[in-house]
Amino acid sequence: MNDLSAISPKEFRLKVRNKEYTEQTSGICKGYTQANLVVLPQKYVIDFFAFAQRNPKPCPLLDVTEKGSPNPKLIAPDADIRTDIPKYRVYKKGELIGEYTDILNFWNDDMYAFLTGCSFTFENALLNADIPVRHIEEKRNVPMYITNIDCIPAGVFKGPLVVSMRPIPQELVVRAIQVTSRFPQVHGAPVHVGNPKDIGIQDIDKPDFGDQVTIKDGEVPVFWACGVTPQAVAMSAKPDIMITHSPGHMFVSDLKDEHYSIL
Amino acid sequence: MNDLSAISPKEFRLKVRNKEYTEQTSGICKGYTQANLVVLPQKYVIDFFAFAQRNPKPCPLLDVTEKGSPNPKLIAPDADIRTDIPKYRVYKKGELIGEYTDILNFWNDDMYAFLTGCSFTFENALLNADIPVRHIEEKRNVPMYITNIDCIPAGVFKGPLVVSMRPIPQELVVRAIQVTSRFPQVHGAPVHVGNPKDIGIQDIDKPDFGDQVTIKDGEVPVFWACGVTPQAVAMSAKPDIMITHSPGHMFVSDLKDEHYSIL
Repeated sequence: MNDLSAISPKEFRLKVRNKEYTEQTSGICKGYTQANLVVLPQKYVIDFFAFAQRNPKPCPLLDVTEKGSPNPKLIAPDADIRTDIPKYRVYKKGELIGEYTDILNFWNDDMYAFLTGCSFTFENALLNADIPVRHIEEKRNVPMYITNIDCIPAGVFKGPLVVSMRPIPQELVVRAIQVTSRFPQVHGAPVHVGNPKDIGIQDIDKPDFGDQVTIKDGEVPVFWACGVTPQAVAMSAKPDIMITHSPGHMFVSDLKDEHYSIL
Repeated sequence: MNDLSAISPKEFRLKVRNKEYTEQTSGICKGYTQANLVVLPQKYVIDFFAFAQRNPKPCPLLDVTEKGSPNPKLIAPDADIRTDIPKYRVYKKGELIGEYTDILNFWNDDMYAFLTGCSFTFENALLNADIPVRHIEEKRNVPMYITNIDCIPAGVFKGPLVVSMRPIPQELVVRAIQVTSRFPQVHGAPVHVGNPKDIGIQDIDKPDFGDQVTIKDGEVPVFWACGVTPQAVAMSAKPDIMITHSPGHMFVSDLKDEHYSIL
């Protein structure tokens, strides 16, 4: 894994395209922005664009391909979205039909690919500021929770906000808010600090997705909008077909995390 | 005019709806965010959404209505976009066919209204920071220039970036960049500081739109992406019909400028 943290995104995507790498992408191409994928047919595209505009914290758009084009021109012009992600999930009418290492057999000229910001980017910024990120320390997936906060609906797309949680030492909470505020295109500032029940989370030790992590004495749970939200919302609309990355198996772009810093 | 600077946006929009006010909106409802309008039929909507995603500095989306709905639910839920702007322009195939004080006779169920950020918001932030805004001092329109910087195209929409210019005392340039960076949804940080020729502007005293303003000794021209860009781009695509606000006659929203500050 060590060498993959230092290779270029282009080299990494070539390995993926050649099926030489099919694992998760945490720590790959360190410093480069990774993205979530949602592929939808044209008839859902206006509603999904509107959903993203209304809910930029869970659904920050980094790139949207032209109709039928597999090339994300803004963030990786020579990439092919159909082959360059280690693992995909294909859903029909909201049901998972399988996981695949490419989607060439599912892609057609009616499709658009949405690439959205991922928390890996702001976690690097937290680590650079010497703010601990517990699930990385404990080598687990980040804990995620379905909240009682509704996203603003758009056409067929509606549903609750999903958040990820990181326990932050209380003396570093303000700094963590500042650091992540600089990155509005990768979820940005937290949506909630403190009591989980305030946002409808009954048991912090039982996340809806991902793994439980340790909250130490003197630490405060801090909640950020999560990229799982648009996938969950899209899934519940039961589109004829929808394709996403498999959790943790992200698209690695050519842009460095710092590109998305607003200040 | 004095009283109109202090009334609520709702009261102001009611005056406009009743045709009691048909003038420019500079200084109206001080502290509340004003927005540019572009109305397009459905067939152009995906491309325009993609154009906005690719060019967020000139085209920051504050709200997009549902198909056929005249209500901007995010920024003024009880407003009617067809009647609540003091003056509109209607274009057919790229040609201006007239100015109107409402668009009830042009609106149909196939239309979407895009409301985009306006520089009035960051100008208030500059003034609050004691940074002078020359065209306000000189009671002129802001000078605007067509640059040699191409926007990233999206479908039928393409064209050059239009910028607005404010001369800033050299010792305040860094502060002006900081202050406007906090407002990415209303054009945000400048796109250029200094020599106009670097971005294809041959004569700073001959703006393409708006008025010339005085640049004093020790001042640096600073250029921000301008909301005229998406209108110019949309016009050059010659859609069957397009409706915009008339320059300076903006939509006044219920949200305060500070709502759009990222930090």
